[in-house]
Amino acid sequence: MISDIRLKELIRTALDEDIGSGDLTTSAILTGDEPGVARVISKGEIIVAGIAVFREVFHALESSLRFEAYFCDGQPAGKGDLLACISGSLKSILLAERVALNLFQRMCGIATVTHKYVEEAKGTGVRILDTRKTTPGLRSLEKYAVKTGGGFNHRFGLYDGVMIKDNHITAAGGILRAVRKVVGNVPPTVKIEVEVKNLQEVEEALAAGADIIMLDNMGTDEMKKAVSLINGRALVEASGNVTLSNVKRIAETDVDFISVGALTHSAPAADISLVFRD
Amino acid sequence: MISDIRLKELIRTALDEDIGSGDLTTSAILTGDEPGVARVISKGEIIVAGIAVFREVFHALESSLRFEAYFCDGQPAGKGDLLACISGSLKSILLAERVALNLFQRMCGIATVTHKYVEEAKGTGVRILDTRKTTPGLRSLEKYAVKTGGGFNHRFGLYDGVMIKDNHITAAGGILRAVRKVVGNVPPTVKIEVEVKNLQEVEEALAAGADIIMLDNMGTDEMKKAVSLINGRALVEASGNVTLSNVKRIAETDVDFISVGALTHSAPAADISLVFRD
Amino acid sequence: MISDIRLKELIRTALDEDIGSGDLTTSAILTGDEPGVARVISKGEIIVAGIAVFREVFHALESSLRFEAYFCDGQPAGKGDLLACISGSLKSILLAERVALNLFQRMCGIATVTHKYVEEAKGTGVRILDTRKTTPGLRSLEKYAVKTGGGFNHRFGLYDGVMIKDNHITAAGGILRAVRKVVGNVPPTVKIEVEVKNLQEVEEALAAGADIIMLDNMGTDEMKKAVSLINGRALVEASGNVTLSNVKRIAETDVDFISVGALTHSAPAADISLVFRD
Amino acid sequence: MISDIRLKELIRTALDEDIGSGDLTTSAILTGDEPGVARVISKGEIIVAGIAVFREVFHALESSLRFEAYFCDGQPAGKGDLLACISGSLKSILLAERVALNLFQRMCGIATVTHKYVEEAKGTGVRILDTRKTTPGLRSLEKYAVKTGGGFNHRFGLYDGVMIKDNHITAAGGILRAVRKVVGNVPPTVKIEVEVKNLQEVEEALAAGADIIMLDNMGTDEMKKAVSLINGRALVEASGNVTLSNVKRIAETDVDFISVGALTHSAPAADISLVFRD
Amino acid sequence: MISDIRLKELIRTALDEDIGSGDLTTSAILTGDEPGVARVISKGEIIVAGIAVFREVFHALESSLRFEAYFCDGQPAGKGDLLACISGSLKSILLAERVALNLFQRMCGIATVTHKYVEEAKGTGVRILDTRKTTPGLRSLEKYAVKTGGGFNHRFGLYDGVMIKDNHITAAGGILRAVRKVVGNVPPTVKIEVEVKNLQEVEEALAAGADIIMLDNMGTDEMKKAVSLINGRALVEASGNVTLSNVKRIAETDVDFISVGALTHSAPAADISLVFRD
Amino acid sequence: MISDIRLKELIRTALDEDIGSGDLTTSAILTGDEPGVARVISKGEIIVAGIAVFREVFHALESSLRFEAYFCDGQPAGKGDLLACISGSLKSILLAERVALNLFQRMCGIATVTHKYVEEAKGTGVRILDTRKTTPGLRSLEKYAVKTGGGFNHRFGLYDGVMIKDNHITAAGGILRAVRKVVGNVPPTVKIEVEVKNLQEVEEALAAGADIIMLDNMGTDEMKKAVSLINGRALVEASGNVTLSNVKRIAETDVDFISVGALTHSAPAADISLVFRD
Repeated sequence: MISDIRLKELIRTALDEDIGSGDLTTSAILTGDEPGVARVISKGEIIVAGIAVFREVFHALESSLRFEAYFCDGQPAGKGDLLACISGSLKSILLAERVALNLFQRMCGIATVTHKYVEEAKGTGVRILDTRKTTPGLRSLEKYAVKTGGGFNHRFGLYDGVMIKDNHITAAGGILRAVRKVVGNVPPTVKIEVEVKNLQEVEEALAAGADIIMLDNMGTDEMKKAVSLINGRALVEASGNVTLSNVKRIAETDVDFISVGALTHSAPAADISLVFRD
Repeated sequence: MISDIRLKELIRTALDEDIGSGDLTTSAILTGDEPGVARVISKGEIIVAGIAVFREVFHALESSLRFEAYFCDGQPAGKGDLLACISGSLKSILLAERVALNLFQRMCGIATVTHKYVEEAKGTGVRILDTRKTTPGLRSLEKYAVKTGGGFNHRFGLYDGVMIKDNHITAAGGILRAVRKVVGNVPPTVKIEVEVKNLQEVEEALAAGADIIMLDNMGTDEMKKAVSLINGRALVEASGNVTLSNVKRIAETDVDFISVGALTHSAPAADISLVFRD
Repeated sequence: MISDIRLKELIRTALDEDIGSGDLTTSAILTGDEPGVARVISKGEIIVAGIAVFREVFHALESSLRFEAYFCDGQPAGKGDLLACISGSLKSILLAERVALNLFQRMCGIATVTHKYVEEAKGTGVRILDTRKTTPGLRSLEKYAVKTGGGFNHRFGLYDGVMIKDNHITAAGGILRAVRKVVGNVPPTVKIEVEVKNLQEVEEALAAGADIIMLDNMGTDEMKKAVSLINGRALVEASGNVTLSNVKRIAETDVDFISVGALTHSAPAADISLVFRD
Repeated sequence: MISDIRLKELIRTALDEDIGSGDLTTSAILTGDEPGVARVISKGEIIVAGIAVFREVFHALESSLRFEAYFCDGQPAGKGDLLACISGSLKSILLAERVALNLFQRMCGIATVTHKYVEEAKGTGVRILDTRKTTPGLRSLEKYAVKTGGGFNHRFGLYDGVMIKDNHITAAGGILRAVRKVVGNVPPTVKIEVEVKNLQEVEEALAAGADIIMLDNMGTDEMKKAVSLINGRALVEASGNVTLSNVKRIAETDVDFISVGALTHSAPAADISLVFRD
Repeated sequence: MISDIRLKELIRTALDEDIGSGDLTTSAILTGDEPGVARVISKGEIIVAGIAVFREVFHALESSLRFEAYFCDGQPAGKGDLLACISGSLKSILLAERVALNLFQRMCGIATVTHKYVEEAKGTGVRILDTRKTTPGLRSLEKYAVKTGGGFNHRFGLYDGVMIKDNHITAAGGILRAVRKVVGNVPPTVKIEVEVKNLQEVEEALAAGADIIMLDNMGTDEMKKAVSLINGRALVEASGNVTLSNVKRIAETDVDFISVGALTHSAPAADISLVFRD
Repeated sequence: MISDIRLKELIRTALDEDIGSGDLTTSAILTGDEPGVARVISKGEIIVAGIAVFREVFHALESSLRFEAYFCDGQPAGKGDLLACISGSLKSILLAERVALNLFQRMCGIATVTHKYVEEAKGTGVRILDTRKTTPGLRSLEKYAVKTGGGFNHRFGLYDGVMIKDNHITAAGGILRAVRKVVGNVPPTVKIEVEVKNLQEVEEALAAGADIIMLDNMGTDEMKKAVSLINGRALVEASGNVTLSNVKRIAETDVDFISVGALTHSAPAADISLVFRD
């Protein structure tokens, strides 16, 4: 997942955003010595994701807090399940609480939605991919959550994968030329993906030697034709307007991958709460 | 809204996350001199929010890009509406595109959801408030989007408002003592809000001189009693499990504010796309 | 006080400013293994403030240094009093010494001056407030020192309190309109303070529903009239040209608060020195 | 003075400290289009220092603000003198005002105090030096203000000058050994200064080849003896408990430099205000 | 090449390292208004690389400096050739000079060395690749210089390419298992490279479906056998102890790529000087 | 050497450059629990430099790694010598390996080259100095490596030493005026160095009271004349086109220092490898 260096920086920024010049309420009332025990409870059916991130927020605030997790990333949890327990300085728990939950609920939310897509496409062999439609600043966490939910990651950014689109093709003067220009300029460790709109372009992409062909907003019938035309000479990705209702139909076209922006840009937060022991 | 200093830093971080060591595809094919014109189109019914942020991403990448907006923040836009037009270096537009959309779609999404809650509560005089359940790193933008959608902001963080909760009350030894401790420690410019669970606590909070009383997860009948008990001596906020289906009923209890976490933690991204002129 | 995250960053920056590319003298002579014991001694009558900050500078440089404090924040110390003792690597103590003292002497200086104002106003019930006239970068530490000296904090910045001044009033078209605009735009947790110059404006501010009224540079006679006019309907703050000689007279006008810029912008450093055991 | 890179960073940090998540009052009332004209007026006898820093704060906030200065750094200004005029967006002026004044008043305050020491020592040929007793984060600005007031700078930090003190001498096993160790380890561009407590140590320092000898807390009689003993073979600095009352007497001992911590750690802010044109 | 955001940050850091608290000499003598013209001259046979970076250093210091380049990246220049001319404030040119040259000389040095390797291997169709053996902080610039000299880039870091080595193979329990684990965990846009030591491992890597096979420290005879065994089923990279004397021989084994650490870790700076017009 | 604060920041940046969004290979195969033992072996004759930096990279990644060094900085090591051993989590060792070696090989390379120059000049009493021709971002490490190899440091940057060059002299109107301007503006702890081109200028520099005179690109005959002309009244530095072949001849002119840019800008990386125990 995300490197430790970046995770710590991200958490530091998030805590600073919330705490700012200081927690007015807590620092007026608590000295820091009062003990506290907080239980983290799922209030719905979720896929757990981000336990390590969740714990790290508490430890970033105060390394002596004791954190016990009762679920692992990837496990399903049900309504009322106790996910984790945090004990130690009540003041520190209160200071970290909101940021910890904001991150954890988002990650569980994404894993939960991803899992639903994966279940829908089960048995077809297709892989559900994420996109770059992630929350600015949280991409690594969100892509990790997708994997936790059973999905797979597409490229992380513009820097680690090639995706030749319309504009590139026009500017280069055709698919063949675009692919050639790229091959001569990028590390040989990177595959070349070309976005196509119709079967004519599929043929051009194949001829140009594309490693992956992305079928953009095609109907499922046309997708089937594309898959049979490609016939294993390149990997095939379907993209555009994928929903829980149509993902199975698309998966049955025999594409290799289906990419879904909604995994990250529209997953509702998982309903999780932190309650203090009575 | 967010200060210019912070907005620029946020955008810089977001672009760096996406571009990293460089855009492999675009820098292989485009020189930077190719002109491009991109049109930004709404694909659903939305409330526009974040035009200035959207523009700033393009300008952060390349200050000479020309950006024209056809909608203002707060305006409703319908399916197919042209929201904005960006022209200039195609390469720069492509480099900024994803980050710009990721921020703009999220802001419009939040404004759109907020607007629905506000419409539901219309006529009751109640104000819809946001919470601290925001995306780490994006709180200022998300709170601005809530205001744009017709909602109001609750405190921005732990540093600019007092909220006395269960744990504080227990630690202080009662509501009265908790309030006193806080009054003696925070700037006089800040109001004191106390979270209560029942009418007994409402009375204690009033006696302690709370400026705002937050009714946590009460039923609407009990809320009504609380409101009539308080009788204008403090502002009243309802909180907990608020949905589009029950917000009107809660509003009718005559509380002053209803706070809704879902405005920010579960708003789906608005469907907006950037297309290049054919 | 200041959050740990920000305190550590501030200390890191301060140490870097002083040490830069390295301590030429110490690194030429000491290996780091030589033991040292430093005693911190007050050379005048002071109010101690910032023990935790003082300690943190040494620990930021070298966590194994042993630090013992013999005074707590808020305690008065006299000439010759031993405030603290630091032992461990002599090299680390020397590297941290100047930055640690620069911060500690300033904080004690502010607490000491604040204490004098508080003593002057004793018995009147008035609260001595600080202002935003603090040293750039050190506001949280300085405001903490004011509290330690017996004063109270005004808002921390432009972000956590409302202060409507002349320019705002003119731009809005009157006090009433200015207050209304603000109420509709800021979190309900924040009080509205209005700055007034005469009794006419006091009345307008009251009519507009100001929570706090700030009497700017008024004479004490006019202040008395203002207080009696307000008659408990708003809190009252006196501001402008407050000195140790006139603070008691102002306090006797029965205002609630007196704000004093000199607490932070002109407090001389407390005279404290660090001596190595002979 | 301070490099542009560091000045911009310092101002950015200072503005962020004050503005935080946004100016509640101003952003509720002003759109940014309202024009404003602010006059900056001295309310006492001062030496002006930091005009460029003062201007830069306003320009950091909004580059289109017009700033006209009527005084130069180093010039004396009297009560009522118009120092500068800022015009442009009222909103931007209000956002920058406090930070700009906090820096400018401190710099003028330091220059003013320095000037007094310089005047006292006039005619003796002695140079008044600053120390490392500066405000963390502001050292470059404060040292610039000392020069503006007619003083001279001592080393900027531990990295650009050698100062051998008691502890170094003890650890090295005598002054001679300490100086030798240092000479073999530091750039040849740096002079070696040795701190001494009595005439015996003066002789040792001379024998060791010290470039500068610092007389620490000596009485003026002993100073005279030291100066005549040194007799031009090294530069001589007097240090410790220097005040406006005794600086002249010390200067008359014929030392080359007198260093004064109070120039920076205890200078009261100059009284300057920013008023908007009626 | 490197993104603008990162280039500006890198240059800012480099200038700060050199200028620190200020240029003592220049700020004592120059006001900033003195005009200057500097000519940049090659003192040997080089391949020019990094003109844009070189210019950006001057512009980072002072945007009004006029910079004219007479060579483009990739062009060979000879002894005495005028590469560029900078005119404007002499003070700004002097402040930027050293950092600008340090970066430019390094980049030209790398391009020049790379070009020699490329020339040696000319006609064989092999591509000369760089490695991750770059200067910490300068990787993007150095990899750009390699491309400018006619070489190609290998992966930029651990994040954008897969390289399965000994340790991974052992830990996974064989090449086949290692490849499978990776395929299931990385974006499909990334190729899988396996490092092998002998022909046996070549066969295993082929069987596992490796996209690229890296022959680590093999003799040229064994390399030839490996190439003929692989027979186009994977790309082949030779690595280890490549020098200008043996690169041609290695190239003639028909491998696809030869990676050379020395391109970046041991290229001497190109001899270039900046002289002021008499 | 470099302060801990800056070293940690530098290492953090370097690791982030290499690891980016995560190590694709290692995180797919290793859990972090697999143990590993790596041996660090010299593959040539080198002077060891930077053991502490090398260790710190591993510890920055994972503090529990065990690091044992068998050589100290400054010691010569031969082909095949075991320099250090690192044991602990294999995953952490692999993540840190490349960055650790990149820094360590560069530092050893510089110390090794420096040592050669020092050996050449042995017996002459001359000191070999470095320059500001260092790698941007790594100056402190590189200057430390020079000292480790037996050389001495010149000034660290523009901020801690004065060097008056041609342009300064022209702008000031002669050497005398330039020196006077500088003396009046820089801390008395700093020596004044003047760069001269001929004997006429040597005399002027002496007359102006220069502490150090730098003979720029003079022939050795002229250098001898300069040295005898100066006759101990100032330190003398030779500079320009120094190589291993001519350094001895220059040293024999009796100058005090010879500065050599190639120590840092053109030292090849030392050949060191990290191998895992079979």
